[in-house]
Amino acid sequence: MRIRFASFKLAAALAALLSLASTSVLADKTYRLNLAETWGPNTPILGETTRHMAAMAEKMSGGRLQIRIDSSNKHKAPFGIFDMVKAGQYDMGHTASYYYKGKVPNTMYFTTVPFGMTAPEQYAWFYYGGGMELMEKVYAPHNLLSFPGGNTGNQMGGWFRKEINSIEDLQGLKMRTPGFAGEVMAEVGVAVTNIPPGELYTSLERGTIDALEWVGPALDLPMGFHRIANYYYSGWQEPGAEVQFLINKRTWESLPEDLQEILRVAMRTAAYDMYSESTHLNSLAWQQMKEEYPDVTHKVFPPEVMDALRAATEKLLKQEAAKDPLTAEIVESQETYLKQVRKWTNISDKAYLDSQPALD
Amino acid sequence: MRIRFASFKLAAALAALLSLASTSVLADKTYRLNLAETWGPNTPILGETTRHMAAMAEKMSGGRLQIRIDSSNKHKAPFGIFDMVKAGQYDMGHTASYYYKGKVPNTMYFTTVPFGMTAPEQYAWFYYGGGMELMEKVYAPHNLLSFPGGNTGNQMGGWFRKEINSIEDLQGLKMRTPGFAGEVMAEVGVAVTNIPPGELYTSLERGTIDALEWVGPALDLPMGFHRIANYYYSGWQEPGAEVQFLINKRTWESLPEDLQEILRVAMRTAAYDMYSESTHLNSLAWQQMKEEYPDVTHKVFPPEVMDALRAATEKLLKQEAAKDPLTAEIVESQETYLKQVRKWTNISDKAYLDSQPALD
Repeated sequence: MRIRFASFKLAAALAALLSLASTSVLADKTYRLNLAETWGPNTPILGETTRHMAAMAEKMSGGRLQIRIDSSNKHKAPFGIFDMVKAGQYDMGHTASYYYKGKVPNTMYFTTVPFGMTAPEQYAWFYYGGGMELMEKVYAPHNLLSFPGGNTGNQMGGWFRKEINSIEDLQGLKMRTPGFAGEVMAEVGVAVTNIPPGELYTSLERGTIDALEWVGPALDLPMGFHRIANYYYSGWQEPGAEVQFLINKRTWESLPEDLQEILRVAMRTAAYDMYSESTHLNSLAWQQMKEEYPDVTHKVFPPEVMDALRAATEKLLKQEAAKDPLTAEIVESQETYLKQVRKWTNISDKAYLDSQPALD
Repeated sequence: MRIRFASFKLAAALAALLSLASTSVLADKTYRLNLAETWGPNTPILGETTRHMAAMAEKMSGGRLQIRIDSSNKHKAPFGIFDMVKAGQYDMGHTASYYYKGKVPNTMYFTTVPFGMTAPEQYAWFYYGGGMELMEKVYAPHNLLSFPGGNTGNQMGGWFRKEINSIEDLQGLKMRTPGFAGEVMAEVGVAVTNIPPGELYTSLERGTIDALEWVGPALDLPMGFHRIANYYYSGWQEPGAEVQFLINKRTWESLPEDLQEILRVAMRTAAYDMYSESTHLNSLAWQQMKEEYPDVTHKVFPPEVMDALRAATEKLLKQEAAKDPLTAEIVESQETYLKQVRKWTNISDKAYLDSQPALD
């Protein structure tokens, strides 16, 4: 009886501990996610961002959340991220929303829009001005969650071998510029071509094309365009290009709440950090270009050219908005927000920058 | 014997489980930190930032990291955060580094400097250009860690009842403007006064002062200055004011690695988010001011005035740098970085903003 009683107490304690232990075992379960990125291996800035995000998530979770990253050499589908994550072939992706315009036209608006918002304006729109909710509306029907994934900063208008002094100088000009900006360029008479990245330098050097647009100093420098084109024009087509993290909805829902929050915050910080790193590396690369190649000259398109490009952009956006109510809602939200936030930018950063002495 | 053997097996299992359970209990230990903020209760933007940070940290840690926040009505020492966190009276603080200039002169440079960097430029400097390392050098001797804690964006130059058309218009002008900017203003002849926030409106209305500088539209709107002063000048004195999180070093070292990372990333995200929220709320408030008070006019100081303020700033910074090698190192780092990054800002965001049509 005494023994049975002792055994009973031991058994009860055992049961209680088993319950405690199984809770801990569950809480300590390791979640392994696979992420496919559009970028090739060791891509500066963009590729660093996925690794930075994964490292923060792993450290914050004490190793419970592990994210393996496949670059495009592994999965062979740089522009198939949307489909692979939707199908659950990968849990996550890192890509640019506007690559999927052909499949889901409304994805376009969440990277950047010609004559749109700068990076700080766009982050304000995403997080406080309704942008996240609109992005969710576009991605939810595909069982995807989408989050801002890093900003390149204001992209440059491109490298030109001749100065552009009028709209006539653009007409018939052979230029590599992809996506929506390419459509706008075509509207004003540019002979738009697309050429694989590996052939860009030779094409520009041999005159197969007269001009091209890539990203900004940090990513343009290793391409070497500054050695064969003197005029580097300020941009209008991607004033704050944000890439995206995509997550399969079932993967997201399989994560406990703490890991969801760790993942959400790691992505958010990595995205902001990419903008800071882009600012840093663009400034370094621009300095280097100018030191090594004093012939490289910064230019802005004359007002006549900017007006024509702006009119073409507005025409095409109006056409898109007429096709679909959700497109109309997104375009309206961005235009209204831009007008409001730009007035503030104008009396703050713009007024301040305009009042400072020239540095060159 | 059988009973003893069964008991032995039970006891062994029990011991194993106890060991497992005690590990889990340790891992599940709740850390409760106390944070003192400079701000009063329910302060918009600044006070939201501490709560946002604490909420992220709690959720990411599954409740293991809990941060209680005391506003200034509780601790009664809005400008004593540095001392209280250093002494361990509080584990953490949320304040502006430059409030402690009188105690540790080098703290001044980590909030903002007249004619210094904008928020995106300064984040690039902090995280990629050596700023964090310099801030650590200043805070480490006080057993404090310091992290960026949120940016107000570009602060406005202030509310003036008369237009400023020349440097003579500033001479003898009675203006409330505290800190280093006040010293610069005094250099060009302004009669600088400091007045408690609660008396500012009445002082301006009754002409005890002719002008004042507060923050920007979002925090100026509730103060009501736009009802009694028509001229709202763009700023030069705080082009990207960053507040700070301070942490007591022993508190930091008492946290396990995963919670350190959770805290670090929560602070980093909350800081960036404050900049996005400031951008959003400043744009809303500026729109509201203009709609409700059409007499409110945006102004920029004439170049002559800006040149005088810039020369006075450079003179004072040179004086400070001569006093202490670490000051010289910080001033040199900021000036060199500004020159590099501003050249990039000028060909990207500034060129883009300058090319856009006026919105008013």
